[in-house]
This record gives sequence, C-alpha cells and structure tokens, in this order.
Amino acid sequence: MYEKINEQFASDNYSQICPEVLKKIIELNNDNALAYGNDYYTKYAADKLRELFETDCEIFFVFTGTAANSLSLAALCSSYHSIICTDVAHIETDECGAPEFFSNGSKLLLAEEKNGKLTPEDIIHLATKRTDIHYPKPKVISITQSTELGTVYTIEELKQIQKVAKEYNLYIQMDGARFANAVASLKCKPADITWKVGVDVLCFSGTKNGMAMGEVIVFFNKELAQDFDYRCKQAGQLASKMKFISAQWLGLLENDLWRKNATHANNMAKYFEEQISDIKNIKIKFPVESNSVFIEAPAQILEQLKQRDWIFYGFIGLGGGRFVFAWNTSKKRVDELVKDLKELSNS
Amino acid sequence: MYEKINEQFASDNYSQICPEVLKKIIELNNDNALAYGNDYYTKYAADKLRELFETDCEIFFVFTGTAANSLSLAALCSSYHSIICTDVAHIETDECGAPEFFSNGSKLLLAEEKNGKLTPEDIIHLATKRTDIHYPKPKVISITQSTELGTVYTIEELKQIQKVAKEYNLYIQMDGARFANAVASLKCKPADITWKVGVDVLCFSGTKNGMAMGEVIVFFNKELAQDFDYRCKQAGQLASKMKFISAQWLGLLENDLWRKNATHANNMAKYFEEQISDIKNIKIKFPVESNSVFIEAPAQILEQLKQRDWIFYGFIGLGGGRFVFAWNTSKKRVDELVKDLKELSNS
Amino acid sequence: MYEKINEQFASDNYSQICPEVLKKIIELNNDNALAYGNDYYTKYAADKLRELFETDCEIFFVFTGTAANSLSLAALCSSYHSIICTDVAHIETDECGAPEFFSNGSKLLLAEEKNGKLTPEDIIHLATKRTDIHYPKPKVISITQSTELGTVYTIEELKQIQKVAKEYNLYIQMDGARFANAVASLKCKPADITWKVGVDVLCFSGTKNGMAMGEVIVFFNKELAQDFDYRCKQAGQLASKMKFISAQWLGLLENDLWRKNATHANNMAKYFEEQISDIKNIKIKFPVESNSVFIEAPAQILEQLKQRDWIFYGFIGLGGGRFVFAWNTSKKRVDELVKDLKELSNS
Amino acid sequence: MYEKINEQFASDNYSQICPEVLKKIIELNNDNALAYGNDYYTKYAADKLRELFETDCEIFFVFTGTAANSLSLAALCSSYHSIICTDVAHIETDECGAPEFFSNGSKLLLAEEKNGKLTPEDIIHLATKRTDIHYPKPKVISITQSTELGTVYTIEELKQIQKVAKEYNLYIQMDGARFANAVASLKCKPADITWKVGVDVLCFSGTKNGMAMGEVIVFFNKELAQDFDYRCKQAGQLASKMKFISAQWLGLLENDLWRKNATHANNMAKYFEEQISDIKNIKIKFPVESNSVFIEAPAQILEQLKQRDWIFYGFIGLGGGRFVFAWNTSKKRVDELVKDLKELSNS
Repeated sequence: MYEKINEQFASDNYSQICPEVLKKIIELNNDNALAYGNDYYTKYAADKLRELFETDCEIFFVFTGTAANSLSLAALCSSYHSIICTDVAHIETDECGAPEFFSNGSKLLLAEEKNGKLTPEDIIHLATKRTDIHYPKPKVISITQSTELGTVYTIEELKQIQKVAKEYNLYIQMDGARFANAVASLKCKPADITWKVGVDVLCFSGTKNGMAMGEVIVFFNKELAQDFDYRCKQAGQLASKMKFISAQWLGLLENDLWRKNATHANNMAKYFEEQISDIKNIKIKFPVESNSVFIEAPAQILEQLKQRDWIFYGFIGLGGGRFVFAWNTSKKRVDELVKDLKELSNS
Repeated sequence: MYEKINEQFASDNYSQICPEVLKKIIELNNDNALAYGNDYYTKYAADKLRELFETDCEIFFVFTGTAANSLSLAALCSSYHSIICTDVAHIETDECGAPEFFSNGSKLLLAEEKNGKLTPEDIIHLATKRTDIHYPKPKVISITQSTELGTVYTIEELKQIQKVAKEYNLYIQMDGARFANAVASLKCKPADITWKVGVDVLCFSGTKNGMAMGEVIVFFNKELAQDFDYRCKQAGQLASKMKFISAQWLGLLENDLWRKNATHANNMAKYFEEQISDIKNIKIKFPVESNSVFIEAPAQILEQLKQRDWIFYGFIGLGGGRFVFAWNTSKKRVDELVKDLKELSNS
Repeated sequence: MYEKINEQFASDNYSQICPEVLKKIIELNNDNALAYGNDYYTKYAADKLRELFETDCEIFFVFTGTAANSLSLAALCSSYHSIICTDVAHIETDECGAPEFFSNGSKLLLAEEKNGKLTPEDIIHLATKRTDIHYPKPKVISITQSTELGTVYTIEELKQIQKVAKEYNLYIQMDGARFANAVASLKCKPADITWKVGVDVLCFSGTKNGMAMGEVIVFFNKELAQDFDYRCKQAGQLASKMKFISAQWLGLLENDLWRKNATHANNMAKYFEEQISDIKNIKIKFPVESNSVFIEAPAQILEQLKQRDWIFYGFIGLGGGRFVFAWNTSKKRVDELVKDLKELSNS
Repeated sequence: MYEKINEQFASDNYSQICPEVLKKIIELNNDNALAYGNDYYTKYAADKLRELFETDCEIFFVFTGTAANSLSLAALCSSYHSIICTDVAHIETDECGAPEFFSNGSKLLLAEEKNGKLTPEDIIHLATKRTDIHYPKPKVISITQSTELGTVYTIEELKQIQKVAKEYNLYIQMDGARFANAVASLKCKPADITWKVGVDVLCFSGTKNGMAMGEVIVFFNKELAQDFDYRCKQAGQLASKMKFISAQWLGLLENDLWRKNATHANNMAKYFEEQISDIKNIKIKFPVESNSVFIEAPAQILEQLKQRDWIFYGFIGLGGGRFVFAWNTSKKRVDELVKDLKELSNS
C-alpha cells in the first residue's frame, strides 16, 4: 500500500516543508493563541510582509493559489467584466474555472503567449476589440511572474504593461505562484516588480517554496481590499487556526529564507539546463529564467523516461516535458535524471 | 509585540495540534509523494475513514468547516432550492453567507432551535409551508451534531428525522464540526449516527479535535458525490500538498485518538459543569452533552471574568457565556476558571 | 380548453394593458427603430422619466420586478454583504431567492414588519447586531413602497430611515412594485418620496399599472449605476426590441396616466373598504393606504368565496384574504364581491 | 428628437411585430386570465408547441435569447463543467458572459468554426484534450441552428454530432435564434432537426420572427427540466402577465405563420444574394442557407454605404458586412440596397 516514490521534478508542489518552516510550526504549537487570524503570529507575519514589500499593503492569508488568484480577481472585477491573460495562464488552464466561479461569471480573454508573456500589443488588442454592451468589459490584466513557461518579465517589460494598464483603465493582478523565483532571478527587490510597476495585487505562493500550504494575497491598492476579509471568510478561506499558516510565513521570511530557497531552485534549473545542453535530440523550449526547464524530445525518449519511474508533466497542451526544481532539489538526483536522458538519447 | 495568552475556553479552535498528529506531519515530511491527493497518505486516510464508518463512502479533504458545509450543501441542492436548519445553525450564523455563495443562491429556512435541535414537526412545517414556484423548494435538512448549543441528537431523534426526510423527499446533511464529541458522548459507532440513520453526507472536523487544519466530507450517498472533486478544485479547496492534511487524519484515526481526544474534551465539560453546579447566580443554560457549557450569569460577573483575561464568547445573539473544552484542556486551568467564577459570584 | 375567467382581485398582475399603452405599441409598430435600446422611444422614455423625477438619474428597463429588485440590490452590495428588509418583503417571500442568486450570496436580514414597514429601530438593531467577520456586513436597506401589506411610508417615516441609513452607512433601495399607488395616496411628487429622502435606487413597476410587462430601474445615485447596462445584458434582461417596453412607458407617462391609473386603483380599494366596514365577521387587517385590502374572516367564508369562483390569495404565511384593485377595476365587479361577502357573512 | 429610420438589414431584431401576432395581443387583452403562466393562453401555446414538435416536451417561456441559452445550459451543467461551441457562437461573442453567470462558472471551450459549424472532430478534440481535475469537464455541446454565419446544419451533420455526443456522454443544446429559418431552409419538420437527432433542449426564438419579445425553451429530455420553472423564476424570467408572451406564440403558430415568416426572410436573402452575384468587388463570404448574407467588400464601399444611412454590422471580429432579412423585408428596399451597392462598386 505504501508507494514510496523517489524525488521527482514534476512540480515544486511535490516539495517538502523546509526545516525552518517546520520548526516554526512545532514552536508555536506550544503557545496558545487567538483564532481566525487575530493572533500574534498572523499580525507579525503581516508586518514582516509589509517590511519585505517596503510599503503599507493589505495582507490576507488563504489556502491555495487557485483561491488566491480567483478571490483577488473577483475583488477587481464584476461578473460582467473580463480578465486579460495568456492562453497558458494558470487561471485559464488549471483552476477548473475558479476565476469564473468566484466572480460569478467574469470571462477570460486570451492572448497567445509570447515566450510565456503577455505583450502590450496583445493587451491593447484585447482591451479594444469590443466596446459594446454585448461583451464583457475588460477590467483586469493578469500576469504570471515567473510565467508558466519559466520565463521572467523584466522590470522594463512590466513598465510597458503598466503604461498600457493606465491608458486603458485596467487593474493589474499578478499570479506569483513562482514570484520568489522571479525576484531571485532578477536579483531585485519585491517592490521593484510589484507596486513600483503598477501591480495592484499580488498572489504570493508559499506552498511551492517550502511551506506545507499557504498563499498570501498582497493588496498594494488598498481600496480594492475593502471588506476582502469578509470575501475570504465567505469563500471558506479563513483558517480558524490561522497561526499555523502565518507561522510558516514567518519561517520563510526570516533571514530571507524565501529568497534562498528560490535561488537554489533556480540554480538547479540552470544546472540542469547546462548539463543537457549537449544532448542530441533534446531541445530547450523556452529561456530558463526561473526554476522550470521545458524540453522538447522525441516521444519515445519521454516514454522511456516514464518507464524509468520519472514523473513529469507535458506542457498543458503543448507536449514535451517540464521539469521543475525546488528548494530541496538535490544535485545528486538531477545528475541521475541527466544520466538517464543521456542514455536514452544515445540509444 | 508578542501577546502570549493563557489557555482559553473560547473555542476548540484555539486548541493546538495534538502530538500524534504533529508527529505524522514530521514523519511524512521525509517522504516524497505525489501531489493533489494522488499520494499514498491520502488514499490510506480515505481507506481508514471508510473502515471507521464501516461503509464504502466517498471521501474528500478540504480546509475549513465553512467550505465543507457549503460545498456539500451545494452538491445537494440547486440555487432555487432551500435548506432547512435551526436559527442557531453555524451555516446561518457564522459562515458569512457561504452556503448562499457556493450554491449561488440557496436560501436557508430557519426553525427555532429546541435545545439546539431541529424537530420533525419544524421540518415538516418548513417543508410544506410553501409549495408554489415563488419560493425556493426545500431540498435539504442540515443538522449539526453535536449541536451549536452543545447538545447531542440521540439515535432515536435521528431516526425520526430520517423518517420525515424520506417522506418529504429531503436530503440530510450533517455538520459534524463536533461530530467526534457526539460519538464519544453517545458511546456509539460513527455509522450509528450517520448513514444508518439516513445521513447523506457528513462534514467531519479535524481542526477542532487536534489537527492544525482539515475537514473531511464523507458522502454516504455516493451518487451525490459525482464530480465533487471538480467542485472542490474549482472552489480552491484542493490542496496541492494534500498529504499534509490527510496525514493529520491518519494521526487522528490511529488508535482511535479522535475518540480519545473528544472524550477528554467532553469529560472536561462535565467536570466544569459539576464544579459550578452549586455557584449561586450561575445557571447552566443547555444540557451538557458534549464539550461545550453555556452559562447564564449576571452581566457584571461575565464582565469581570473578562477583566481577569478570560476569553469567551456570548452565544451568538443569545447572551451569556460559552465555554468549550478541547483535547488538550488541563484540569488545572478549569479549576482556575471555577475558582474565579466562585469568587466573582460571592462578591 | 378555454377557461374564461371573470374579473378578479387576486393581484394587479391580473390586469390588462390599458388602452393608451396598447395604442402606443400599435403606433410604434409602424416605425422602424434601432435595437437594444438605442432607439428613439427608449431615449425619449428615459428623458420623460427624468422629467417625472425632476432629476438627472440613470434609467434602465428590465422585464420583471424580480429582476429589477435583484439586479439593483446586486449593484449595491457584494456577496458577503447583507440586505435589511421586513419578513414580508417581496424580495424575501416571493422571488425564489433571486436576490441571493443575482448577488451570488447576499443574505437577507429580516425584521418583523410593523404594519408592513421597516422601522428605524429595527434597522439599527439589524445593522449592529453583528460586526464580526463571520456574518455578512449589512449594506442596504430595502423598503417596499407601497408595502406588501398595502400601507404607505409617509415622507416623515422615510426621512427617519434616511437618517439611520446615513448614520450606519447603508444604501436605500426601494421596491416600487406599487410605487405609483403610494404617490397617488400621498398626493405628492415622485421626487418627494425617493431621492429627496435619500433613496439611492428605485424599482418602478409598469406591469401592475397598465402595461403588458416592464419595470424601470431608476438610479438616483448615479455612481452605483456604473456598468449597470452590462449587468442587465449579462442577466438576460436587455430586450432587443426594447422599444416595445419603453413605448409602453411613454403611454403610461403621457398625461400622467400612471397617476390616474393608480388613483383609480386606490379609490376602488377605499370603496371596497367602506362597503365591507359594517359586515360582521370581516375585519380589515391593515390600514388601507394604497390599492390592497387585507381582510380577516372565518375560514369557511373565505372557502365559500372560492367556491363562488372568487380568486384571491391569503397573505403569504399570514392567512386571511387579500384583494388588490387595479387601473381597470370596475365598480360593478367590486359590488358583486361585496354582495357575496355580505351574503356569506349573514349565512 | 424623433429619429425616424428607414427599413434596415442590420438584424432581424429590428423587425416589427407581425400583424397576426399583434392581433392576438389585442384580442387577449379583452380577456381576463390567471397570472404567471397559469392562464389558458400559456397552456394552449405549450400544447401547440408540443404538437409542432410532435413529442411530449417541457415548455418554458422566457424573455430573451440570452436568458434562454444561459438558463438551459445551466440546467445541463454545473459550474465545474464546460460547454463546447464555436468561436463565433452567440453564447461566446454576444451574451456578455451570461452562460458563465447563470451557471456560476461554466467555461466555454471554443472550436474554430468551419462555415459557422462545429464538426465532430472538433468536438472530440475538445472533449478529450483534458481529463484531469484541474480543467472543467466537458458536459454540453452547444450548436446554433441556423448558425451565426447563416449556414444550416444538415440532418446528416446533426446525426454525426449526435453520435459523438452519445459516445462522449455530452448533452446537446441548440441555440435556435434562427431555428425557424433552418426548418424553412431544409423544408423539414422541427422534429427532424431536434429530438430525432439527439437534441436535449432547444431555445426557439420568437423575437426575431415576428414577435415583440419572447423565446421558448423546449426540453426534449424531460429529466433535465426538473424544477426548471423555479430556475426561471429565480432568474427573473417568469412573466407575471405570461399570457402576453404565449399569446404571441399562438399568433406565430397558427397556420404555420412562423414557417411562412421564416421562408420569406430566407427568400429575401436568396434574392439579395442573386442580385449582387455579379457586382465586382463584392464577395459572398459564407453559403447563404438561411436569412443572413455576409459580404466581403472593400472598406470604402462599406463606409460609403453607411454614409448613405445603411445600418449593418461587421461580423463580430471578422470584418465585412452582414445583412439579415426578416419576415417583413420588402423587396423594394432590398432593391435599393442592391442599387447602392452597384453604384458604389462601379465608382
């Protein structure tokens, strides 16, 4: 019954709780605290996050990235508004219609991804193609940073998007499932790629970066956060023992552990990229800028990899193979994957 | 900044993670596992739950009781249907309209609680008072076991409700926030007060009984569970690292720890009831049948209790004071509360 | 197959299209016009309504009172907000949960009606009884003018409500299913009992007052009307041949026909009230201030009335009998009802 | 203020009420009737429709095509299900997200239209491309008959779709905004292209075919219609004076007027097609099989047409010009359009 599996690179969702975070859970378990987020840990974690982002922002803790994205989007637009994103956006491909559900009907307007990104031109096209009452009025731009294809918007690219957003009166929501990896990649500060470039709200993931579970929604545009706590409660996203989520954040924030974890993951991706760069038949599909590597390879190589008990996803709808590296990725295990890829490629 | 508070009896939501559960979290953190519930722990926990309930039922893990109740209700009725419950039901008083939200409009039809319970007469009244198209058609009975007022439906009472449900073509959903306490109180088997008496779906709480977070939805009527996993995913209730929730359940289920934890909580409530039985001015408001004690006392006694840093709720809308005991309630701390109550009563 | 029924007083929904309105439908059918409300009739009707209300307001035409109420409420509050109204409010008793549906979860907080009305004390009680996050935050007061029990809020009563609304930061929505009857009863101007006393949005019925179908939503608080046309479209309430609805409004507005129709209906109610005032066993239940008369009578009298093919409703949940008079009520038919009531009472 | 416009071919939504229908409205206005569809007219119209479709089906009257489509789709799928349709489907392009709203989150999966149609291959592709829990499960195929591009599915094509629907366990909903035109075009019986080829529910438009307003939803799969009347009521689509809608249907159904109206419209389209067939620069974009003609022409010709006060739409997103002919299209006016097109083409 016990299916012990080896370390895999299917997703950073497979990663464990990192020790510093686990330690925090154990520690706080000795303290009594108030429930529903009125506890010291939650207030302290919120303050540390405000420190991290260098601005006075509204902080909310929820359980999943799907909930974080959908609730923040629902706060930004009504059911008869629409959301601009790429055709590989997680909110479109992997949330089972959660944005549509939580907003009670907002439509997603899709642009073809360009290296995983939304371009200003595409945004303008979608924002202006319909202005009549029979089509939901565009209201929000949703960008994923780092993108679903592992690339990272530069500060300049974000400024271009900010410009367009301002001109067409659109909000900017940022899906930060791998936000930490983007910050680590750009070697910048969190503020540099969020509110300083016009982002209204960020969904910042902890689950992928060393926590058991937990995402934080950061509203830079505080007006949009009005009554958002009620929204979370009604959505079943208000944890009674909130301290167990916020304490995990404290663990990640201390000593910039979140950045270290993300940096390690990025480094492993880079290392993997280098190691396979000379394997014939294997092509890197997209620039490796964060912690994911997408490869194109002949079908039978991928098949045989699976037979060797490697677990990985094709790109949703795009074929090939995706390998995601995490805070706890061991170089040893990466080498094993590289070894198998080399063998299969040569056979 | 650090608000250390003493052990409180405001709610079993204040309780800690019990050691066996915490141990499981630490243990499994050493294993790799698949994500989104496809892991061994989740499958094993589901099997153990099926064992516990002695029947083949569908099992789903979600984060909060609010989500559990609302999602299960939404699976049982459409937006133009209605739900029968008491006026002190948690789904009415404390979920910020979550049932209405998740069902996209189902109305709650309220009956005055009788010692916290729904009676067959009240159900019949609500089920038949309107049969025209202008009023949402009753579809579900929602009962809380143990009730919000700390009482427990007997097996006979449940059979009466089952009879009415059958006659009026209504489903039965059970809010089991304190289900463990009810089973412990009745000294019965979980099956005896669920599917054997016609309950279609149960929301069984772990959070209140020694877990960090986690509720399980148990569908005895398997038809109603069709595509329920999609519903949970769309609702942002599908944990990517599901194993951390299911592992906690494994901790609770092993050696019937769930029952022991609940029994201890009930015992502490009984102990407290006895200890204050002779204090003048303090009246026990409802029969103490699980882990809550509701007292009626002069306002200034309650006020002074608060000044002595005791934290407790009035009944939502009913005044007085509620004390809830948990798996980790220390007799010593109960004695301190009793001592203060005696002092304040005599002064 | 053809069930010809005699003139009835079950509801003003049974009334016909008044001739002036029917004439307008026939007239405009000879003109070509743009669709979806971009036609001359719709713009002209909107202007006439702004004239009638003596203010610059936003006008929207929808098909039913249920839709009008629900859409306007949804524009005023989010899913986690709540709406204060009486327990006999149409939005609670007869819209099959439409307010909950269109708002995706707003709860209705009910106060016991006092002669059909909401009192400032009750509003304050409901607005303040819960301030925590677990209960939907009150956001709107919904008052029905004329009330469901046939009474009419005086200007002074409305000012009291306005005062409370301001103090507790609540919007005021007015269900004007029988608004015309209220204006006729008070012999005032529409402005006097709407925006001048703080009403943010009014749902003004045409269907009950001589039209085939059609309601108008009047936003005095124009900010709240932002993108409301999109909301109506998404809700399936945007008529493609809108001119047929707006033209009916032109018919009603010309020469103050709406007021004449309502006055006649009120007069018939008053006449009926007088005529039955001396019948033993028949009690008038509520002050007759608009076009409805609620009587209390022994069950068998009401039963026998029905056997004489009189169709009427009991009060929803309140028993007795309700008689509603319309623009086309004939005195002759009222006399027939009075005659039967006298006979049955004496027998 | 009075913008009298000439007969236009922008849409059959611009058409008037045909005389037989108007006559019915006037006639029934002399009768009293019960409200909310309990009247004789509504029952009779429902029976006539069952006669027309030669089967025992459930009939519901609503106000708009948008509501008809969305409500029927919501009855067929839950929020976490998805709907397969073309990228030019009205439910996607022109209902402002109504399907998403009424279903509380169902996603539309789009296939590229092939002459306006959905092909079996495309359906299979969309039905199978994702089978995991993170994507809404396909549940319904929505086909428009006649299509938005004026083409008509043959019986054989519908049988192919039926086959696929059965194999992949999908329902079939038919948007019949121009259903009458399809039946007229195929010279078949309504049953031949609905339930006999597996259609579960049809939305049949009256508004475009000579009525003031009114659509009927026809459930051939009666199970799916359970409690659908409650759904309509909650959605604000239950007319209190329902007889005015059903009476219009009686007018259309008598003497097959619906078919004659549609045939005339189709004939005018064919006539127009012939008349412009030899104009240089004007291309017919799609086969003319019902009452719409889509032309491709140089931009300045289209511009100048508009300057000559011709009103018409480009295809939503596709450019060009669309001309739609109705029951009351006059040959004389078509000739005027042809004349202008010829002039502008030659200049």
